Amino acid sequence: MQLFIGNKNYSSWSLRAWYLMSKFNIKFAEQQLVLDTPEFYKTLKNSFAVQKVPALIDGDLQVWDSLAICEYINDAYLSQAAWPKNIVQRATARSLSAEMHSSFMALRNEMPMNIRATRKVELSDAAKKDITRIDDIFSQQQRIYPNAWLFGEFSIADAMYVPIVLRLKTYQISLSEPAMRYCEQVLNCPILQLWITQALRETDIVESDEAGVAVS
Amino acid sequence: MQLFIGNKNYSSWSLRAWYLMSKFNIKFAEQQLVLDTPEFYKTLKNSFAVQKVPALIDGDLQVWDSLAICEYINDAYLSQAAWPKNIVQRATARSLSAEMHSSFMALRNEMPMNIRATRKVELSDAAKKDITRIDDIFSQQQRIYPNAWLFGEFSIADAMYVPIVLRLKTYQISLSEPAMRYCEQVLNCPILQLWITQALRETDIVESDEAGVAVS
Ligand SMILES: N[C@@H](CCC(=O)N[C@@H](CS)C(=O)NCC(=O)O)C(=O)O
Ligand SMILES: N[C@@H](CCC(=O)N[C@@H](CS)C(=O)NCC(=O)O)C(=O)O
Repeated sequence: MQLFIGNKNYSSWSLRAWYLMSKFNIKFAEQQLVLDTPEFYKTLKNSFAVQKVPALIDGDLQVWDSLAICEYINDAYLSQAAWPKNIVQRATARSLSAEMHSSFMALRNEMPMNIRATRKVELSDAAKKDITRIDDIFSQQQRIYPNAWLFGEFSIADAMYVPIVLRLKTYQISLSEPAMRYCEQVLNCPILQLWITQALRETDIVESDEAGVAVS
Repeated sequence: MQLFIGNKNYSSWSLRAWYLMSKFNIKFAEQQLVLDTPEFYKTLKNSFAVQKVPALIDGDLQVWDSLAICEYINDAYLSQAAWPKNIVQRATARSLSAEMHSSFMALRNEMPMNIRATRKVELSDAAKKDITRIDDIFSQQQRIYPNAWLFGEFSIADAMYVPIVLRLKTYQISLSEPAMRYCEQVLNCPILQLWITQALRETDIVESDEAGVAVS
C-alpha cells in the first residue's frame, strides 16, 4: 500500500490520512512529493484522476481525499474500529469530521499549516468565529471525555482535527483551559512528534503557505 | 426523525440528504426553513451547534452536514445498502463523494443551484475545468454501468452529484453523450421530479444565488 503525501511542514490533508494510518499501525510505503512542483502533478497524474494529496494506492485500487482514505482504512483494515462503537457517538464524530472537511475556510486560509514557523496574524472576524467553534468542539468533548481523545478512544475525528492543533501552536492562539488540555494531549502523541520531527528537517518553502509575521 | 432543509429551489446540500432518504423510503418529517432569514438561524440554533442545512434530528441525536447524514442513515437504517457492496466500488464511491463535498468551488460559486431559472453565464477557466471533471466522472461510470446509477445500483454517490445535474440544466451546459445519458436518467427519477415540482411552487428569492443572465 502506498500513501502519497506532500511536504510534512505544510500538507495538512496529508497529515490527516498519515496520522490515522500510523496511529493504527497500518503498514504503508510513504511516497512524498513536494507541493507546487511539476513533479508533484506529473507523479499523481500517472495514477489518479485528481492531483491532490493525500492519495492512496492499494493493489488495483486508488483512493483520493483524506476522508475517503480514512473511511477506506476503517472499512478494509480496522473492522470499523476507527469510529466510535456507539452509533450516537459515531454520528457525532462523522458530523464533526464532515464539518472539518468542508468548513473553517477562513481559519484554513489565514492560518495555513506551517509547523516550523512561529507567527502572528491579524485574523478576520470569520477566522475568529472558526476558532471559537474549534474551542467549543474541543472543550465540549473534553467535558465528556476528560484527558482523552475527542470520543474517548482515538478516532478518525481526532485525525481530522490534528492539523488545527498544530496551527493553533504556530499562530500562538490560546483557547479555553479544557480545549488547551486536548491540544496538549495531541501534541504529546509520539506519532505526531515523529511527523513534526520529519517536518522540521524539510527545507522547501511554499510561499503561499507563509502567511503572517514571523516571531523571533 | 426530522430533516431540516432550505428552499428547494436553491438548497443543493439539503437536496442531497433529502434525496438519499427519500429514495430509500426512510420516513421523516420535513422541516423547511427559508435561507437567509433570521428565522432560519433562530430555529437551527435551538438544536444545532452549526446553523446550516441539511440537519437531522433523530430522537436525542443531532446530525449535521449532508455527508454525515447520508453515512448515518446508511449505518442506522439501511444495513450499509447505501454504498456499493464491493469494497473497491465502495472506496471509489466514497472518494467521489468526498471530492464533491470539498471541491468544485468554481462551479458551485458561478452556477448556484436555481431550479426555476434558465441562465447563461460566462464561466471562468476553473469552472470549465470543474465541468470537464464532472463529464469524466459521469461518462466513465456510464461506461462501466451503462444506463444505470454511478455504481449500478443507486448509492450515496448519486445523491451527492444530483444538484450538479440540475445546475447543468439551469445553465444549459452540455456534456459528452454518455455523461448526458446519466443526467437524463437522473432527471427522469420520479422522486427528483417531486422535489423539482415543489421547488417550482416556491416564490422566495435569494439574491446571492441569482447568478447569470436570464434566458427567456
Ligand atoms: N479534500 C481534499 C483536499 C486535499 C488537498 O487540497 N490537498 C492539498 C495539499 S494539503 C493539495 O494536494 N494541493 C495541491 C493542489 O491543489 O494543486 C482532502 O480532504 O484530501
Ligand atoms: N458541508 C455542508 C454544507 C451545508 C451548507 O452550506 N448549506 C447551506 C444551504 S445549501 C446553508 O445552510 N447555508 C446557510 C449559511 O451558510 O448561513 C453539508 O455538506 O451539508
